[in-house]
Amino acid sequence: CSSSQMQTVTLIPGDGIGPEISGAVMKIFEAAQAPIQWEERNVTAIQGPGGKWMIPPDAKESMDRNKIGLKGPLKTPIAAGHPSMNLLLRKTFDLYANVRPCVSIEGYKTPYTDVNLVTIRENTEGEYSGIEHVIVDGVVQSIKLITEQASQRIAEYAFEYARNNQRASVTAVHKANIMRMSDGLFLRKCREAAEKHKDVKFTEMYLDTVCLNMVQDPTQFDVLVMPNLYGDILSDLCAGLIGGLGVTPSGNIGTNGVAIFESVHGTAPDIAGKDMANPTALLLSAVMMLRHMGLHGHAKKIEMACFDTIRDKTVLTKDLGGNSKCSEFTDAICQRVRDMD
Amino acid sequence: CSSSQMQTVTLIPGDGIGPEISGAVMKIFEAAQAPIQWEERNVTAIQGPGGKWMIPPDAKESMDRNKIGLKGPLKTPIAAGHPSMNLLLRKTFDLYANVRPCVSIEGYKTPYTDVNLVTIRENTEGEYSGIEHVIVDGVVQSIKLITEQASQRIAEYAFEYARNNQRASVTAVHKANIMRMSDGLFLRKCREAAEKHKDVKFTEMYLDTVCLNMVQDPTQFDVLVMPNLYGDILSDLCAGLIGGLGVTPSGNIGTNGVAIFESVHGTAPDIAGKDMANPTALLLSAVMMLRHMGLHGHAKKIEMACFDTIRDKTVLTKDLGGNSKCSEFTDAICQRVRDMD
Ligand SMILES: CC(C)[C@H](C(=O)O)[C@@H](O)C(=O)O
Ligand SMILES: CC(C)[C@H](C(=O)O)[C@@H](O)C(=O)O
Repeated sequence: CSSSQMQTVTLIPGDGIGPEISGAVMKIFEAAQAPIQWEERNVTAIQGPGGKWMIPPDAKESMDRNKIGLKGPLKTPIAAGHPSMNLLLRKTFDLYANVRPCVSIEGYKTPYTDVNLVTIRENTEGEYSGIEHVIVDGVVQSIKLITEQASQRIAEYAFEYARNNQRASVTAVHKANIMRMSDGLFLRKCREAAEKHKDVKFTEMYLDTVCLNMVQDPTQFDVLVMPNLYGDILSDLCAGLIGGLGVTPSGNIGTNGVAIFESVHGTAPDIAGKDMANPTALLLSAVMMLRHMGLHGHAKKIEMACFDTIRDKTVLTKDLGGNSKCSEFTDAICQRVRDMD
Repeated sequence: CSSSQMQTVTLIPGDGIGPEISGAVMKIFEAAQAPIQWEERNVTAIQGPGGKWMIPPDAKESMDRNKIGLKGPLKTPIAAGHPSMNLLLRKTFDLYANVRPCVSIEGYKTPYTDVNLVTIRENTEGEYSGIEHVIVDGVVQSIKLITEQASQRIAEYAFEYARNNQRASVTAVHKANIMRMSDGLFLRKCREAAEKHKDVKFTEMYLDTVCLNMVQDPTQFDVLVMPNLYGDILSDLCAGLIGGLGVTPSGNIGTNGVAIFESVHGTAPDIAGKDMANPTALLLSAVMMLRHMGLHGHAKKIEMACFDTIRDKTVLTKDLGGNSKCSEFTDAICQRVRDMD
């Protein structure tokens, strides 16, 4: 690989186990000779003019230039009024689609097999508008904001995603029986997008019904698209079906190719620095990133090496049911990657 | 039993399979010599002055007098502007707490065993306020309304329920990290109720985390209390864990002893009138009703007869994995009830 083909990616290692699992991903990418150059940045929010919380300028500049980021877990801010860094990142870069493939991992036992679905969550509005008021003492309202533009954008994205990823159906998840106007608008935009993508099957389902059917038989679902809060819930539920946030990748997609891929588990401060963390979620997020960049060969190779290592069961981190260190698990994946050449 | 001890209950048989499963419950209650007299009423919404949809006066009058109701499934109204009958009933009788025990049924296999939890859903406000606006073309807002009064009432109810039902812990389910003011208020009221009920353990958990943990290990949960929409979702999810809406009872509790118990499954028009329906959900709801009325002996007897019949597997309706008719399943339960005497 000549360095002229190299692409630079902004790496936000994150807090707690973040640096360790980021290190693991870098090592595996090197073993796979993935043409990626990392540009490390920290994103601890700073306060700009007027006290507004913002991403540090050098991190913002790096993302603006590279367009693609990979991000480890960030600790939840405890200062009052301090925004969630995850929300701030989604907002700063207008990352409107949160995409989470949930695919059963062979050899990692859960009550479910053959799960193979993708949740696509509107990531910018809805219940996350941040608009709340005290009407009178003891009466509070929160505003759920649904716009035509954002609904159309995410609906279109879901159908494009289905088409580009050989997926047969899209289910719109809603409560338009209750929120007739807001979820009604969201649903209407999904129906319109469905009209334009007749090659993809379209169904509609109430959120409660989806949850019930999901735990009874997740194999009936394929691509699911939904407003912000429903996506927050359903993506975690689905992650639970295949083994939890430690093995579930995630991507936040914006316009013009901008995207941040991230593991959505916590910073696990109790095991940080002890070489015990499981890098799988961040690694599989990095694999999503490679596909997003069109590097399908490298993606496939790393993904196979990871899944083969888990299926083999010889070298696993503790949370995966083994006794190995993060570095040993990482080395086992590197070895498999090299053996494929 | 002398008829002077009889208590009258309003029976709303409902649509589709409603009459059949109501008939089954009546038969089993008779076999168990439960001191209940049924007063049948239909609740097809009618339009009052000003076009306002309302419960028919004779049904309302019956409920006002008897205070206790048992209700089969009602078909979803299709007329535009026609409210959901379920919502109208909750509103008319101020049934502020929706209670759904989800307990694994021995002999009815699902991916989970030993589930034993109760969801307690605020049933009157939140995302179900019905207040929505178009702000400008293409921009819609729905208002989630949280009040101190309703939050306090449901929080108190959850702790009282835990105490009265020998349950050790209450978990408040929320997204106060996102809806800081509304879910924040709800959570504050839960904390205050917890302060008053130190004998019950109290925990707080984000809704997304609850969903994830729920599908991984539901046995960690006991009583869960939450705002309206979260309860809609979580109660269906939990029903899915133990076998679906066909086996899950539900109660809607108001003040001064007013309550309506109901099966929450659909009207199943495809099998209506064919003697194929499964009366379990309505029967177990009727058992909840007996407990609510203090008739614990009759409740226990009927519940045991139902569970024994399911565990025995000889006589089961189709949806439970058998070949028997509704009437045969009902007779089998009656037989067991009689054998207990
Ligand atoms: C950290 C939190 C603000 C966030 C959310 O609620 O969206 C998280 O649950 C997620 O899914 O990314
Ligand atoms: C029928 C519908 C309006 C209702 C709801 O959303 O509350 C149902 O899902 C329920 O849980 O009782």
